[in-house]
Amino acid sequence: MVLDFYFDFSSPYGYLMAEMIEEVAQRHHATVVWRPFLLGAVYQKTGDKPLPAHPLKGPYMQRDFARSARFYGIPFRLPDPFPVSTHLAARAFYALNDGSSETAKRWAIAVYRAYFRDRRNIADAETLTAIARELGLDADALGAAMQSPEEKARLRAECDAAIERGVFGSPMVWINDEPFWGVDRLPQIERWLAEGPF
Amino acid sequence: MVLDFYFDFSSPYGYLMAEMIEEVAQRHHATVVWRPFLLGAVYQKTGDKPLPAHPLKGPYMQRDFARSARFYGIPFRLPDPFPVSTHLAARAFYALNDGSSETAKRWAIAVYRAYFRDRRNIADAETLTAIARELGLDADALGAAMQSPEEKARLRAECDAAIERGVFGSPMVWINDEPFWGVDRLPQIERWLAEGPF
Repeated sequence: MVLDFYFDFSSPYGYLMAEMIEEVAQRHHATVVWRPFLLGAVYQKTGDKPLPAHPLKGPYMQRDFARSARFYGIPFRLPDPFPVSTHLAARAFYALNDGSSETAKRWAIAVYRAYFRDRRNIADAETLTAIARELGLDADALGAAMQSPEEKARLRAECDAAIERGVFGSPMVWINDEPFWGVDRLPQIERWLAEGPF
Repeated sequence: MVLDFYFDFSSPYGYLMAEMIEEVAQRHHATVVWRPFLLGAVYQKTGDKPLPAHPLKGPYMQRDFARSARFYGIPFRLPDPFPVSTHLAARAFYALNDGSSETAKRWAIAVYRAYFRDRRNIADAETLTAIARELGLDADALGAAMQSPEEKARLRAECDAAIERGVFGSPMVWINDEPFWGVDRLPQIERWLAEGPF
C-alpha cells in the first residue's frame, strides 16, 4: 500500500502529520511518497486565503495549532513570520528526491523542525543551505538547484498535478483513490490501512 | 464542567457530534448546553460560503461526510436539498428549551435524524410540526412559536452572541474559554474533560 502525502512546508498541520505518518505507515506495512506543493498555487485557482487572514478562524487556528501539537506530544512554536513562501524548500526537496527519497524525507523533516521548532525563516535561501550543510548534504549544489529552471518547472508541474488530483489543503493523504484531509484524519487513515476501505 | 455545543441543523458534522457528545460528556460527569445557530448568519459577517460551493473542497466534503459517519458507526445519507435553511428548526428548539432542555435535546436529535437519516426536508414548517407530533409534543403551539416575533428575536440574539464568542463553523464546542471546532476534535475534548487543560 502506498500513501501519497501532500503538504506545504509552511503548514503547521502538515508538520504534525510529517512527524507521525511514517510510523503509522510502517505499522501497516505501507510506504509513503512525500509530495510538497504550494498552497499559494492552490489559492490562486480556488480564491481561498491563508487561514490566518480569516477574521474568526484565524485566531482559533493559532490556538488549535499549539493545542493539537501538545495533544500529539510534538514540540511546536508558531514562527514569525507566518506563513512564508516555501517554493525554495519544495524545489530543494524534489532535487534531493531524484537522488534518494530517504534523503529528501530527512530534508523535509529538518526543514519543518527548523521552522516550527526553531523558528528559523525557511523562506531564506541561506537558511535552507545551512540546513543542508547540517545534514551533511552538498549545500552549494542544493542552492543552485533551488534556482534552476529545471526545478522551477518541476515544482510547477507537481503543483499542477496536485490541483488536478483535487488537493486543496495541507496535509492531504491519498490511499489509491481515497483522499484524507487534515492530520485529524489519521485515525481514519489507520483504519483504512488496517482493515481496507470502509 | 459544562460544554457549550454550537451547531447548525444543516451541518453533517454537527449531526455526528450531536449523536456522540452526550455520551462523552456523561462519561466525564459533564453537562452539555445545546446552542443551535445559523451558519448563514456567520457567513454574512465573514464572507464565507457553504462548503458545497467550494470547487475542490465541496466534492471532498461530500465523501468525507459519509466516510466519517461510517467511521463512527452512525447512519447517514446526504439529503437533497442540501444545505437548507434551518431558522424554523432553531426557533422551535429555543421555544422548547424554555420549558425543558431535555425535551429540546430530544427535538434536536429527532430533527437531525429526520434530515440526515430519513432525508426529510427540515426547512419545511410542515415537516417540523410532524416531527413534533411524532415526539408527542404540542405541534400547534410549536408551529406558532416558530413564527412568533419573540422566537425570531431570540434566535437573532443567539446568533449574535455566538458570533461575538467566535463561532465560525459547526460544530463548535466550548469548555469554559477553550473552543474546539469539528467533530474530529472529540478526542481532544475527551482528554480536556478527563485530565484538565493541556
